[in-house]
Order: sequence, then structure tokens, then C-alpha cells
Amino acid sequence: MAVTMDAIVSLCKRRGLIFQSSEIYGGLASTWDYGPIGVELKRNVKDAWWRAMVYERDDIEGLDAAILMHPQAWVASGHVANFSDPLVDCKSCKRRFRQDHLPNYIGVRLRSAEMPTDVGLTVTIAADSFDDAMKKIKQGKEWSSKPKGYWTADQLEPEHVVKVCPECGGELTEPRQFNLMFKTHLGPVEDSGSVVYMRPETAQGIFVNFESVMTTMRRKLPFGIAQVGKSFRNEITPGNFIFRTREFEQMELEFFCKPGDKCQPGERDDMQWWEHWKEERTNWYTRYGIRRENLRLREHAPDELAHYAKGCVDVEYNFPIGWQELEGIANRTSYDLTQHMEHSKKDLRYFDQERKEHYVPYVIEPSAGADRGTLAFLCDAYREEEVEGKEPRKVLKFHYSLAPIKCAVFPLLKNRPELVEKARKLAHDLKQSFYTVYDDTAAIGKLYRRQDEIGTPFCVTVDVDTMTDGQVTLRNRDSMSQDRIPLEKVESVVQEQLTAARR
Amino acid sequence: MAVTMDAIVSLCKRRGLIFQSSEIYGGLASTWDYGPIGVELKRNVKDAWWRAMVYERDDIEGLDAAILMHPQAWVASGHVANFSDPLVDCKSCKRRFRQDHLPNYIGVRLRSAEMPTDVGLTVTIAADSFDDAMKKIKQGKEWSSKPKGYWTADQLEPEHVVKVCPECGGELTEPRQFNLMFKTHLGPVEDSGSVVYMRPETAQGIFVNFESVMTTMRRKLPFGIAQVGKSFRNEITPGNFIFRTREFEQMELEFFCKPGDKCQPGERDDMQWWEHWKEERTNWYTRYGIRRENLRLREHAPDELAHYAKGCVDVEYNFPIGWQELEGIANRTSYDLTQHMEHSKKDLRYFDQERKEHYVPYVIEPSAGADRGTLAFLCDAYREEEVEGKEPRKVLKFHYSLAPIKCAVFPLLKNRPELVEKARKLAHDLKQSFYTVYDDTAAIGKLYRRQDEIGTPFCVTVDVDTMTDGQVTLRNRDSMSQDRIPLEKVESVVQEQLTAARR
Repeated sequence: MAVTMDAIVSLCKRRGLIFQSSEIYGGLASTWDYGPIGVELKRNVKDAWWRAMVYERDDIEGLDAAILMHPQAWVASGHVANFSDPLVDCKSCKRRFRQDHLPNYIGVRLRSAEMPTDVGLTVTIAADSFDDAMKKIKQGKEWSSKPKGYWTADQLEPEHVVKVCPECGGELTEPRQFNLMFKTHLGPVEDSGSVVYMRPETAQGIFVNFESVMTTMRRKLPFGIAQVGKSFRNEITPGNFIFRTREFEQMELEFFCKPGDKCQPGERDDMQWWEHWKEERTNWYTRYGIRRENLRLREHAPDELAHYAKGCVDVEYNFPIGWQELEGIANRTSYDLTQHMEHSKKDLRYFDQERKEHYVPYVIEPSAGADRGTLAFLCDAYREEEVEGKEPRKVLKFHYSLAPIKCAVFPLLKNRPELVEKARKLAHDLKQSFYTVYDDTAAIGKLYRRQDEIGTPFCVTVDVDTMTDGQVTLRNRDSMSQDRIPLEKVESVVQEQLTAARR
Repeated sequence: MAVTMDAIVSLCKRRGLIFQSSEIYGGLASTWDYGPIGVELKRNVKDAWWRAMVYERDDIEGLDAAILMHPQAWVASGHVANFSDPLVDCKSCKRRFRQDHLPNYIGVRLRSAEMPTDVGLTVTIAADSFDDAMKKIKQGKEWSSKPKGYWTADQLEPEHVVKVCPECGGELTEPRQFNLMFKTHLGPVEDSGSVVYMRPETAQGIFVNFESVMTTMRRKLPFGIAQVGKSFRNEITPGNFIFRTREFEQMELEFFCKPGDKCQPGERDDMQWWEHWKEERTNWYTRYGIRRENLRLREHAPDELAHYAKGCVDVEYNFPIGWQELEGIANRTSYDLTQHMEHSKKDLRYFDQERKEHYVPYVIEPSAGADRGTLAFLCDAYREEEVEGKEPRKVLKFHYSLAPIKCAVFPLLKNRPELVEKARKLAHDLKQSFYTVYDDTAAIGKLYRRQDEIGTPFCVTVDVDTMTDGQVTLRNRDSMSQDRIPLEKVESVVQEQLTAARR
């Protein structure tokens, strides 16, 4: 059974993964807070990315640039001039739409010869063109305006009317460009000289630090700079839970490499690195538990590509709302560094010691969303399973490394102080090694289900026998197997499985 | 020898810890980017805090609320009305000052009887009062205006003049309140209905989620909610490197507990929890390497306390710029939740099952700065040491858990491919367990010093003997001891020491 977005949203709210932001004030549109379980999941997703990028590879450095940057950086990047959506307003109902998201509603004015010239009947109809609209009107199917019975379409002559508001049929304004960067003012005076932007992407923080990182870390091409952090876009139509929000977190890598004409024999050029990153990034998602059949690579058509890009592919995930972008992997050529060179008047070229030559590196950019990544891991892990002889269960089959809580400890009987004490102590001790919780607020079967629902891979139960044989029951989330093991071995058994999963 | 801020800033820039933000564009005032080494240090500081709060304790939940919140939350919290600084402008030179940071410059107009009434000599002098200023003028010491020789103070009669600009002596405006919250607009229309703020503190994100967290996590008092995240304050006078910046990261805990009159015998009341947190937080800094003599607790005087606070203490660190606040620990009583109850019309009271009674919990707030914390750990770790028979060394004696890089691997000779290959492979293998780098760009003595300077606790050298006896040299940062150990034991020996340090 396919998971629905409603099931995910409901689970997230009920079990402390994700809450609507400022909910007690009615919420702030499309803004979400990560609760105690969600914050761990998202931390784990970000840590898994950081680990794969910075800790496991030899060719990548980390960075954490500020959200507020010099405004000139956004001029250089093109965001001030071009990072905008076309908006249209309805002159009647004052609603506002993104022109490129507007359904093709055509208003057709119909008149009969008997009518005075200033009288007419405007029909609003979903259609791609005027001719298409007329065809539908002639078929008499989709008239959205009243009064239908009075005239028939045959008695009326059409006049061409503008594209209209899909809500009220009113006239729309010409589109205006609306910049998606949030603007604020630095310092006490609100004038144009004090304008700064909340960054709409983390990438530019990497480009402006390219030279500093390369120099201080003694790097040669190829090498990358990785960054995780918040970005902000004043989207007109955010939505679909944490898939598209105005405040979001990115995991971006800028991988600087040699363009093809600068490569020595045997060196990877920019297109080969692009191929490398397509494969690496796809593998990262499957490594952490996404099923391969729920991922696909969609290459951008030439007319989708930015003018400077040599290629771009989206890693898409089969969300409950359909296939949507998780991550874009672009070959941005030398565009960004060249732009910053021009605007900052600083030489950001690389000196190739073998060629004795300066040139601007090319850059491959795998740019992932941490929130939509988290959502994909959530959707993919979610299962509703039949259990023989028992109630069906909801379970989040997270990769162990992503599981918010690694282990839960229960006393079989909460009215037996010696069991409670032993279980509490075990939980407290395990916490030193991995995130462990204690719970005794329900019967054991219910406690297992609770942990299944938030994806905890291991549960440990302390029972009456534990007091004599020193053994506890270790239960696995996925197999639901229950094994008796010595209490003092729990830490090493669980740790071993967590470590094995991580490698 | 005491460390200077200049030495720290210079090291940070040179070794990839902290760069000025948007440096290629001349920088953005008081904004800083964490480079490859700095991002690890700050991550480790935040992780150490999270570990101490969320993972090691049984009574704290984590949270990650959005930076953008419903604007009404900031009305409730008092920030819209009161989170402001008094600013004054100089009418002559147009400079702007925080009134409470303005030195007491008094302008005194001096006249002699022979002068026409509209003529006078204005003397600008640093003084607390008019009388004080006159005294200094009579002493003839501190006249800041010309021409001194022409008249002596005795020949002149003083007239009272306003407090003046310390830069030009010009007249100052009356103070105006300037709100420190950064303001922006959500959605395409910039009107008052669309105003949102970039949060000036993470705390309010916790208060608005108090009920959701308590319910979903089945918590009873006492329990806390911990959060790490960016905040923004439009400070007029930021400065001192990363000590005070407009964009900064906080590590805040709100610990909800019972007020004294609701406690059962033996239960800790709010003041006892306040004491507990003063001790815990001080211990956290010393646990991670800050020397106790560089920390002090400074209790707020009654006139410093917010009207609702029952007590507040600052944990101060002896920075190169003097004793400054690292963290504030306040007993905020029931103030915040009560304010949000009133403004949201939601019942945020706790139901005490033993007392069968609803009441608003008290809250203890240890609120730490991640950036200034990082700076304190940096300053405290920094040493310049004499080394017998060798060049003095600069070393960052970080706690192992905070060290950005845990281990560095070098080949003794970079022109011996078999050594290079073995060292590279060892570094790559160690990376799976802890952050390890490979370096061969200098002689071994210099490589050690390089790692000392960024606080790497372990260095491993692969030499010619390694090829026959399978042993490598493991060098410790602090003792500078060099031990021969089998190559395959490096991982476990280092891991053991890292783990031992963490506990």
C-alpha cells in the first residue's frame, strides 16, 4: 500500500517529529519545527551527508559561512537581477498568482446582435487557447458563468478576452517580476545602503571563500568544499509539508576541477566528475535506505539549462505527491568564480603548477535539500505491516544510522521497583554510547509498537528472570526477533550492529 | 604569557578556522565564516553541548524550531515593545551612538564679559557631570578645543551646554528607541501585515512548542527542552571578533520545573534547579578543557534583573578583552509561558496529577553562545611553549572531543612511493572511525607543528622501518611523546583515548 502524505504528516505531529511552527498562534504558513524525534532524524541525515563528504573522502573540506553576506555577492551571482518569479494580480478579487503556475483560464466575452454593445456575457473556461475555449463553449460542457439557459452559444458571437483569474474570472494585471530573496536592513538606518539579503542558497558562501580555503588548506585541483546550512526563499507557493518551505536547509557541495582542455592524460575532466557525482549521490541515498526503484535521474532538457551550465540532472524521489526533485547536480563550468572575479576585482584563478598556467576551475555542484531529504527518508521508511496473530503495525524502517533513537529500555513490570531500577540504570548507561530512552508508561507490546513507529531499531526488556539470570530480551525492529542476552553485553551487541550498518 | 585577541584572530585566519565573511568584497561588518578547521571545532562544541544535554541526561528533549516565527510570538515575548537600544544622533557630524554606550562627553560653553552674547568657546570634555567638567576645565588639563592660550578658564564664565558628540562636539538628538530585531516581509506584498522577524533568540521557539513536546513525549515536570540554532540581532556596536556578532548561534535550554509552593517533600524547587544548572554549566566548560580560574559566576544585581526574573547569573570567561559573559543562567519564573498563554489564548498550564491541579511551570534558562563559547575554548587552548632544543611552538591544547582533526598521518619521506601509499591508505582507513588527514607537504618537524597549531591530538608517521617491522610512530600533541606501535593498532589506540576523554 502506497504511503500518503497525510499518514506521514499525522505521524510526524503525533509522535514528535515535526510540528507546525508557532502552532499556538495558528501557525506561520509553510514553516515547520522539528520536535524531539525529528531533530534527531534531521541531524542524522545531515551528519550522514557530512560524513560521506568530509570525513570519508580525502578531497573535500567543510565550511560554515554566514547567512548574511555582502550584498554585492548577490549581484555577482545574478540573484539580484534574475532570482525572481513573474506575478500577476487579479484586478477584481486582488488574489495574486505566479504566472507560470496559473492554469490557463480564458475569459471569452459572448454577445448577440440584439445586445447593446456594452453588454456581453463573459464565460471563464479552462483552456489552452481561445480556439480551444470556443470549442468547449460550443460543446456546451464547461460554462462556468451564469445564466446558461438564456442564450445558447450559437446565438452569441465570441470576442477575444484576456486570460483571467481562475478564482473569480476577473481581469489579470501584466506580470511583474518579484524577487525571491528576503531583504532586511543592517544597522539602524533603513536606506538602500543598508540592504542585506537572507541567503537564498549556501553555494555563494562557498564561492566567495574558494581562495581562502584553497590557500589555508594547501589544496590542489580537484577538491571540493561542503556546507550545510539554512537558506531562505520568499516562495509564493510553498507547500507539501516540509517539501517546499520558505526557510529550508541545504547540503551543498561545490567540487572544483579542471576543465577538459587543462587535464593531463588520465585526469578526470569536468564531465567525468559530473558523472562521478551523479553516481555518488544516487548511491548515498540507497546506502541510507532509500529503495532504488524510488529514485530516478532526470536530465534537464536544453531549454531548462541555465545558459552557463554544461549539464544538470535532478535526483528525483517518488514522493506521495509524485516524482519530485531531491537534489540537483549541475556542471556550472567556470561561471560563478568568473562572476565573483569580475565583481570583486580579485583574482580567483587557480595556478596549475604542472602547466605553469592560471585558469578558472570548473565546478560540479551536487545541491541537496536537507528537509526534503529527511522527508524522502521518512516516506521510504514508512510501512504498515500485518503481524501474524497481532494488530498490524506502523513502522519506520530507518537505516540504523538515521534512526532518531537507537535503543529503548523497558521494565516488563512497572510496579516492580527492582526491575524499574535496573532498566533505568541500563538506559542511563547505554546513553553514554548511543541515544537511548527509558519508557514504562504502557504494556510491553504497546511499548514495542511505539518504538516501531519512530523507527527505534533495538528494544531491551528487563524482566523478573533478569534478576536471577542476568539476561535481558533484545528485540529487533525489523525482524521482530527477541533474543536473550546478558545485560552487560547489550552495549557491545547494539554498538556492533550500529557500527556495521554505518560502514 | 597571556594570549592576545590579535594572536587568535591571526591564527584563525591563517589556519582556516575563521575567515571574515565575504572578504573578497571587503567583508560584511562583524560577520564571520567558519573555515574547514573552524567548522569542525564549532560542530564539536555544539555536539558536546547536545551530548551533555540530550544524550547523557534523562530529563531533556531536543528541538529545532524555525528561525521565522509568527510575529505575535514576539509581541508576547516583549521583544516588539522592549527589545531596543536607545540611539542618539549627532546633529553636526551625523554619527550615531548607543546612548548607554556613549562616553559622558559634556560640552561646556565658556564666555567672558567682553565677548558679544552670541560668541562663546565650547569646550568638550569627558566628565560625568557639569560640575565635574568645570573642575577639569579649571585644572586646565583636558580642554579638547582650541584655542587654549587665548583665554584662561578663570577669565571665562561657564554656561551649561548639552551632552555632546564625543567625535565632533556637536549637539546630540534626544534618544530614540531602535528595535534590535531584523525585520523582513513574508510573501510578495511589503505591508505591515506581512512583517516577520528573524528570531533574536531561540528561546521563544521552545516556549511555543512546550505543550507539543510535553504531550508527544509524555513528559512530566521537571523536564527541559534544548535547542541549538542561529539568532540575529541588529546590534549597533558588534565587535571583538566572534564575541559579539549580528548573526550568532545559541545553545539554549529551557528547563521547566515546579515552583516552590507546588513541590512535594524532597522535590527540587525552581531555586534548587537554578543552583543545579549553575553548577552543571560551569562543570561543562571545565569538562571540555576551560581552566577553572578563567571562569567566574557573576550574579546580577537587583537593578540588572528583568522584573519577572527571580535570579540571574552570568558565567563569565576571562577573555583577552577581559571578563565577559559566556552564558546567562536565569530563573525566568512563569513569565514566558504566561505571556504566551495570554497572547495565544491557549492553555499552557501543566496538570499536576498528584496535586490534581493546573499551574504554569517555572523555567530555568541556561542560555549559552556557541560562537563565544568556541572563542573561549580557542583562547583557553592556545599556548606558546618553549621546547627544549627546538623552536618554540604554538599549540591549541583542545580537549580531544573538541579537536577539529583527531589524527594526522605523514610519510617520513615523500619521495618514497611505498611510504606515501601506506600512509595514505592508513589515513583513509582511519577516516572511517575519526576525522583524519594526510599531509606530506613539509618535513616531519614542520608537519608536527602544523598539527599542534590546529590542536590535532595524534600524529602518525610511516617511515622506512614501517615497511619491515610494521610499526609506526604515534606522537601525542600534549606530551610530545613518540611511541612505536603496530600500524594495525593505531585505530584502536587512538579510538580508546578519544572515547576515554569523552566520558
